[in-house]
Amino acid sequence: MTASTPADDATTGRPVVPAIEAILGREYPVLDHGFIRVVDYMGDDAAVVQAARVSYGARTRRVREDRGLIRYLMRHRHTTPFEMCSIKFHVKLPIFVARQWIRHRTASVNEYSARYSVLDREFYVPAPEDLAEQSRSNAQGRDEHVPAGVAGEVRRLLEEDARHAYDRYEWLLNEKPDGTPVDPARPGLAREIARINLPLSTYTQWYWKVNLHNLLHFLQLRADPHAQTEIRVYAEAMLGIVQRWVPQVAEAFEDYRLGAAELSGPMLKVVRAWLAGEPVDREASGLGLREWRELHALLGRELPPA
Amino acid sequence: MTASTPADDATTGRPVVPAIEAILGREYPVLDHGFIRVVDYMGDDAAVVQAARVSYGARTRRVREDRGLIRYLMRHRHTTPFEMCSIKFHVKLPIFVARQWIRHRTASVNEYSARYSVLDREFYVPAPEDLAEQSRSNAQGRDEHVPAGVAGEVRRLLEEDARHAYDRYEWLLNEKPDGTPVDPARPGLAREIARINLPLSTYTQWYWKVNLHNLLHFLQLRADPHAQTEIRVYAEAMLGIVQRWVPQVAEAFEDYRLGAAELSGPMLKVVRAWLAGEPVDREASGLGLREWRELHALLGRELPPA
Amino acid sequence: MTASTPADDATTGRPVVPAIEAILGREYPVLDHGFIRVVDYMGDDAAVVQAARVSYGARTRRVREDRGLIRYLMRHRHTTPFEMCSIKFHVKLPIFVARQWIRHRTASVNEYSARYSVLDREFYVPAPEDLAEQSRSNAQGRDEHVPAGVAGEVRRLLEEDARHAYDRYEWLLNEKPDGTPVDPARPGLAREIARINLPLSTYTQWYWKVNLHNLLHFLQLRADPHAQTEIRVYAEAMLGIVQRWVPQVAEAFEDYRLGAAELSGPMLKVVRAWLAGEPVDREASGLGLREWRELHALLGRELPPA
Amino acid sequence: MTASTPADDATTGRPVVPAIEAILGREYPVLDHGFIRVVDYMGDDAAVVQAARVSYGARTRRVREDRGLIRYLMRHRHTTPFEMCSIKFHVKLPIFVARQWIRHRTASVNEYSARYSVLDREFYVPAPEDLAEQSRSNAQGRDEHVPAGVAGEVRRLLEEDARHAYDRYEWLLNEKPDGTPVDPARPGLAREIARINLPLSTYTQWYWKVNLHNLLHFLQLRADPHAQTEIRVYAEAMLGIVQRWVPQVAEAFEDYRLGAAELSGPMLKVVRAWLAGEPVDREASGLGLREWRELHALLGRELPPA
Repeated sequence: MTASTPADDATTGRPVVPAIEAILGREYPVLDHGFIRVVDYMGDDAAVVQAARVSYGARTRRVREDRGLIRYLMRHRHTTPFEMCSIKFHVKLPIFVARQWIRHRTASVNEYSARYSVLDREFYVPAPEDLAEQSRSNAQGRDEHVPAGVAGEVRRLLEEDARHAYDRYEWLLNEKPDGTPVDPARPGLAREIARINLPLSTYTQWYWKVNLHNLLHFLQLRADPHAQTEIRVYAEAMLGIVQRWVPQVAEAFEDYRLGAAELSGPMLKVVRAWLAGEPVDREASGLGLREWRELHALLGRELPPA
Repeated sequence: MTASTPADDATTGRPVVPAIEAILGREYPVLDHGFIRVVDYMGDDAAVVQAARVSYGARTRRVREDRGLIRYLMRHRHTTPFEMCSIKFHVKLPIFVARQWIRHRTASVNEYSARYSVLDREFYVPAPEDLAEQSRSNAQGRDEHVPAGVAGEVRRLLEEDARHAYDRYEWLLNEKPDGTPVDPARPGLAREIARINLPLSTYTQWYWKVNLHNLLHFLQLRADPHAQTEIRVYAEAMLGIVQRWVPQVAEAFEDYRLGAAELSGPMLKVVRAWLAGEPVDREASGLGLREWRELHALLGRELPPA
Repeated sequence: MTASTPADDATTGRPVVPAIEAILGREYPVLDHGFIRVVDYMGDDAAVVQAARVSYGARTRRVREDRGLIRYLMRHRHTTPFEMCSIKFHVKLPIFVARQWIRHRTASVNEYSARYSVLDREFYVPAPEDLAEQSRSNAQGRDEHVPAGVAGEVRRLLEEDARHAYDRYEWLLNEKPDGTPVDPARPGLAREIARINLPLSTYTQWYWKVNLHNLLHFLQLRADPHAQTEIRVYAEAMLGIVQRWVPQVAEAFEDYRLGAAELSGPMLKVVRAWLAGEPVDREASGLGLREWRELHALLGRELPPA
Repeated sequence: MTASTPADDATTGRPVVPAIEAILGREYPVLDHGFIRVVDYMGDDAAVVQAARVSYGARTRRVREDRGLIRYLMRHRHTTPFEMCSIKFHVKLPIFVARQWIRHRTASVNEYSARYSVLDREFYVPAPEDLAEQSRSNAQGRDEHVPAGVAGEVRRLLEEDARHAYDRYEWLLNEKPDGTPVDPARPGLAREIARINLPLSTYTQWYWKVNLHNLLHFLQLRADPHAQTEIRVYAEAMLGIVQRWVPQVAEAFEDYRLGAAELSGPMLKVVRAWLAGEPVDREASGLGLREWRELHALLGRELPPA
């Protein structure tokens, strides 16, 4: 599958965003063999505002500028105006990343089919700086990088295994590019079976179309430091694209979502007491030890001695 | 709410459909005060083909032309490639129509809010030819038109009641366009309460954005003769717009959806026997009386004498 | 439509919640003629835990008790385990409330059809204490109650108009309960047309089935003080039912959602400065005036003199 | 993850289906190491009828029996009443099957996480009778079985590769069941990285909860002969479970969906001509060659000599 040649420019009466037109169809490299590119888009900052002014009518006439209205919508979690914009990406990504990605059910997907077609000989091998130890404190995380020697060995083994699995896949298929058998004495296995031997690091491709509200929800979870590195790099590339596409929405998203924190009722009580200069006892506050620590870290306050 | 002035034409690298550009923003009148207009769109016939060729890869190389591939997708109910196109409408419609419409949950909606804003004095009164008797045979349908004299009386009463309800709404609001009270001696009621007195024939407005797959599903149900007349006229206007936008998809939709019929297993057995010249007994066939009649009507075959 | 007689009790191997069994089928009155009742439910607190332990595996073995795990899930916005529980309600509600409710698209609905059936003579008239002035400061809200005399007058007018509209509806239908005409000299109008004369205060009914995650999202928006009173009373009734059904989830929801507040990045900076005893200038902080006030109110801090 | 012990039986006022209670929690083996079991369910045949009678009111009073009403709903593609029932499965399945399954976006899923937990040493190796050649006529299908000798060789190679990949996975993890390293001289790699070496034949597990409407849609696509064998066997197991759970719905589904065929407008014209004894010319009929053949096969009619 190759990137389609973009159409010659034509005139349109639709909203047009020059900064995104400038990168239409351009492949942004991600990981060792992946990429992401914008295939199409619909709407802009003004389309969000237009929808909000219908829904909230007279109310919004007071919020004179568009930027202020967008910030108001983001702050109060009004979601439907952001659904009025959509974007379509073409993405090349390892299968284990695709498995995390597809858990977001509110998008449209057309994936390259390994039942119909032969997959390319491409698989992900982490860069040395992305090879880290299993975290002891956080079951889903990575800890320190492994030493350079170990990293080299790990990369060699992953590459060797992926190559071997692909060689075997080709042997099972027994099929030349023109469809004739490599070894005429032996039948080729159905593609849908042969591919089960390939590792989760194998690359796949898809078109992924999503509205802006659902895309921001995706980015909030996947551009987060807790997300797996290999999906976060795609999220970060998309965040850069969102900044070009809808800069006012992107700004509000960064202030009110990415940089924000939610404080529970019990946490708010503690903060009120601190501001009033009153002593606070953790056990009496109802906060668990983990929450207690999170709150101190969040507000830059030193933990009292145990 | 007035139609926004379309943007000056600008150049774009996205797919452009001249026939839909030509009507962008134009209001198509529907019913006595309603309309529908295209605000934005994304994709074209070729975008459906592009997505299908990713998903079905080599398979589709044999289907050389786009038109054949689109017909294949429609015939075999492949749905995801049609999700790659989207369209956004601005619609003005009576509330009872909006209530049927919103049951389709797979679209994005921003509706004019009667909590925030004052509704306009506009309500639907059916044309004389749309005033029909309750059907005796079909609980959800209409039968013959009512006589002209009755139609005139019905229209007069519906209009009178709607006007009265709106006068009362204004009295309850007690609010001039500039926000000051009409009668300073009396408080104005909250808009969200005052509107509960308005009839279901009152007009509302919304932006409605939907992908092509879900739009076709909507049209299959709502452009159908069993749909209520007042929503069917909107569906028919949208079908005309789809024909401009994605003509190959529209053609396949008409052949394989609108003009199609589904035959059950037992029905197929009956047709096979007929074609083989064998006698068929209804009771033995397992078909109910209603299905038996439907099958004869569908295939232009006379019912045998009872 | 009358409430179906609950089945005789039978034994089951599924999770059973005695506190919800005790109210199965019982009608909780809401507003003047509405109600809500539980028809069926699936899952319990333990079903949420069971799903989480599959997803997060070894990680969750450390969180020994179920209650702690549920609080962890709620705090970190893990949503899929809450989707494992569902509940089905039978609700009777005014049409204008139904119109707000249905905007939540992630539920299953079967509504009483006014195309097929004749609606009952029942409509909502607000109690005197729910009749309030249009808010001056908040376009969507209510302000002070209207004086008793005005309230009485408003109630009288709303009731009079609703009765009149229903009389007219019956005249248009011209149909006795047995289907024969009241006035044989005149045709009866199709039900789907006659109903357009009825006001938005008319009651309708539906079955509404939703999973626990989507129900909590509904409750967060609709049990909120900014929601319209007439939908909030339904949300509050449902919140009471959730407390019976999944008490540990309900407790976590109240702590981490209902009582919580989200602080933006710029707000967090201000709080850090306050805790450190540093002076904060609003303009330099990047907070708008409205946000500045919200933050003071939230943390019980007096606004500095302007 | 082991199957949880079912709860001791308790009494409930909810609908109870004895035939499904009898198999609650029982593992049905699928493929070489997979299974499917019912964890919970909600509703029964009568719940579908109950919802339909609300929606279609008086209309349905004429359809006296429940069975007839359910068949009517299925025939006319009324979908919402079927959404009133839900079922929750626990499934163990190979990852390549999970990838096809998850494309159905209208269900709730909690999958075993290979970021948090170590996967078991279990992978799918097709039985000899499931090893078939790539179809020449249908890019997505299988043709004849491969000869026994080849099948044995293929199975040996698939097993060998999967074992090797799992050995490597364990080496990379370098982690004993108690969390201590196997080789203390070397750091263990993060689980989320180590798993990328595993093949698509590796088994995973999930809870999958779906409403009856969406389940039937899944079964129509995946119990179909065109579905890949390895997902079809799961669909067939679920179809057997649906027959126990909602026997009247299952019967209507088999008659009106599984055994049914959709005839396009042009196809219907051809059938009408055949029944009238008129000659039909393919080119004039507007049918493509492929459709022409499909129609003959469907109706048991011999193709005329070319």
